[in-house]
Amino acid sequence: MASASTNLLADEILARCDVLARFSEKPDRLTRTFLAAPMKQVHEVLGAWMRDAGLTVRLDAIGNLIGHYPAKHASAPVFLIGSHLDTVPDAGKYDGILGVLLGVATIQRLAGERLPFAVDVLAFSEEEGVRYRASYLGSSAVCGCFDRELLKRVDADGISMATALRDFGLDPDRIHTAAYPRERVLGYLEAHIEQGPVLEEKHLALGVVEAIVGQSRLWLEFEGKAGHAGTQPMELRRDALAAAAEFVVAVEHSAQHTAGLRATVGAISALPGAVNVVPGLARLSLDVRHADDAVRERAIETLLAEANRIGMKRGIAVRVERAEQLGSVSTDVRLTNILASAAQSVGQTPLRMVSGAGHDAAIMARLTPMTMLFVRSPGGISHHPDESVLRDDVAAALDGMVAFLHRLAGEMT
Amino acid sequence: MASASTNLLADEILARCDVLARFSEKPDRLTRTFLAAPMKQVHEVLGAWMRDAGLTVRLDAIGNLIGHYPAKHASAPVFLIGSHLDTVPDAGKYDGILGVLLGVATIQRLAGERLPFAVDVLAFSEEEGVRYRASYLGSSAVCGCFDRELLKRVDADGISMATALRDFGLDPDRIHTAAYPRERVLGYLEAHIEQGPVLEEKHLALGVVEAIVGQSRLWLEFEGKAGHAGTQPMELRRDALAAAAEFVVAVEHSAQHTAGLRATVGAISALPGAVNVVPGLARLSLDVRHADDAVRERAIETLLAEANRIGMKRGIAVRVERAEQLGSVSTDVRLTNILASAAQSVGQTPLRMVSGAGHDAAIMARLTPMTMLFVRSPGGISHHPDESVLRDDVAAALDGMVAFLHRLAGEMT
Repeated sequence: MASASTNLLADEILARCDVLARFSEKPDRLTRTFLAAPMKQVHEVLGAWMRDAGLTVRLDAIGNLIGHYPAKHASAPVFLIGSHLDTVPDAGKYDGILGVLLGVATIQRLAGERLPFAVDVLAFSEEEGVRYRASYLGSSAVCGCFDRELLKRVDADGISMATALRDFGLDPDRIHTAAYPRERVLGYLEAHIEQGPVLEEKHLALGVVEAIVGQSRLWLEFEGKAGHAGTQPMELRRDALAAAAEFVVAVEHSAQHTAGLRATVGAISALPGAVNVVPGLARLSLDVRHADDAVRERAIETLLAEANRIGMKRGIAVRVERAEQLGSVSTDVRLTNILASAAQSVGQTPLRMVSGAGHDAAIMARLTPMTMLFVRSPGGISHHPDESVLRDDVAAALDGMVAFLHRLAGEMT
Repeated sequence: MASASTNLLADEILARCDVLARFSEKPDRLTRTFLAAPMKQVHEVLGAWMRDAGLTVRLDAIGNLIGHYPAKHASAPVFLIGSHLDTVPDAGKYDGILGVLLGVATIQRLAGERLPFAVDVLAFSEEEGVRYRASYLGSSAVCGCFDRELLKRVDADGISMATALRDFGLDPDRIHTAAYPRERVLGYLEAHIEQGPVLEEKHLALGVVEAIVGQSRLWLEFEGKAGHAGTQPMELRRDALAAAAEFVVAVEHSAQHTAGLRATVGAISALPGAVNVVPGLARLSLDVRHADDAVRERAIETLLAEANRIGMKRGIAVRVERAEQLGSVSTDVRLTNILASAAQSVGQTPLRMVSGAGHDAAIMARLTPMTMLFVRSPGGISHHPDESVLRDDVAAALDGMVAFLHRLAGEMT
């Protein structure tokens, strides 16, 4: 479907993903967290590719690498295309990176053609929240909503974020300068791998995102009473792990019976954690997502009531910590329609879908209208070395993004 | 009920437990593992108490401290009283120690009276299995069933057992000399805190043990497929932790509905263990105990079948590792009857019970007829700094043990 030149560019994008995957904190797998040394190498290589594509490159105060492609006129607004360069531990090669490289390739495809708006390609320094247990640092700064309290937070080695920024050659006191003036920005487009199995199930290369789900993260603690596994009769036990296990089963059951709800217990621990001791304490995480905030909040209330019912029945105290809460974010209807028709114009049938994962785009919505383009994830695999994309899907995404910019330009003239 | 002199001795026993609890590897809590430096100090102090009681003291080749109380006649057999001096990490003051000090006090109460048998008070160097992940080292050597392969095993600091023995001034090549000649030994009595809540529930000070439960330790691994907690629809998941949780609930249910069965999941982990990732792997321990080996083995087969059923239903692979298996051990009927009537003779109503915990007595049964006396554990608390005993219960145990030796002597004359 795509032209030979698009296919060549898609091949180049995949080769570039391979190159960037080599810059890692670990010798045998890809782990590249916020401001770690390999990020410097990525900036050097990616900066060179940006310049080759005709972009002027700068580094902002939070470590975002930004390539600027000028408009027809100096006073024109700017359209933003972006995604992130950091990774989870033991990551795949495409999460985040692909969106950045698609942005650069989109500019390559323009081949110097000036549009009635400038285009900035943003390579965010942080999205995954690994190093400082805080996500979206790059896009937050661009939106002017970076929380300066985070500068004091320390990583696993005791290095504060302020120190990490200085060590990278950045000035934490100038983070506010990373913010774009709202009135200059036209919109934001992020291409990203789907990270799920839906497009593959439907045999489609591309999706356009209508909403990014709202998400709550909670921690639950079940406190019973530790006891000797041999001497404590079953009927006298207050087994914290048995209570937690009953809750895990209830969480799964509830999500299976609520349309669109995803609820996950990803982490669990039991204390003291010895083979021969009845656990006195169990702790688990709860991740709940839905595109409709009201449904998500109702589901959480139901699950917490269930946790309390289990606790009451067993003489187990239940404590709840609400760690994080993000409302669902809708994409901009106009930009999404333009993106969908752009994808159709290049021969695709994009699926309108909800993103179950969070993305920088959800933060960028605070600054400007935004939309997202999803690229099929074979096997639905992500956050894993086996993460992949298909060359033809990348070519389709590239064609769609170029068509999107042309349609957007067409609407302005 | 007990005499004033018995009460004084019981007070002394409690004071001595306090003294020995000070000899610890940790400044702020009691942790005293096999051949650690504080064991030397315990030997000095306990050795002095033994000599004061009229015992001749020696150290055997595995580090057991043994006090010998001679019989009326030099050729008489020897009766053994013992328990262990080592502790779990962050232990209480009575587990093991109380039995040793009750043995010493029993000899004090004899006040030089010669019996038709000698009495050896054995303070075993190792029972808990902490330092070398192997239990009952002291009693195994006394029984002549010490496994010399263990000498090569290293502790967390890489120190082999052979080296640890030499560093303590012992000769690993002479461990066989710690074995008692079977024909010289009359029997074995161990007093121990119950470590469970049963005596307290029944308002009884003492129990006599009819059997020590058989015990199996297994590890189960559930392997599903990790996935993104936001993007993976519920119906496409193979959540390893949800499967494991269903199993934990089934284990509890099964044990609650099988008389005398105790089944415990004490340890659990989920991988990768991130809040936002569906667990691909879950691992848990399973501890199953019953006084009847056939019931225990049937229960394990039923539980493993249930694990496989859960796995099949969910597309989860289940792997089982059988880590340890110990058959149940009955105490000697004659000695137990003598112990029960001795306790009754001093005004107690001893409960005939099953020990859910393992003890040196289970190993000593390989050498000689044995029995056990249990002392009520307030709150059922053990393996914890809050572990305690009541002064009056200790006095009752002491009276019972003296009466036991007298009754045993009476049967021989």
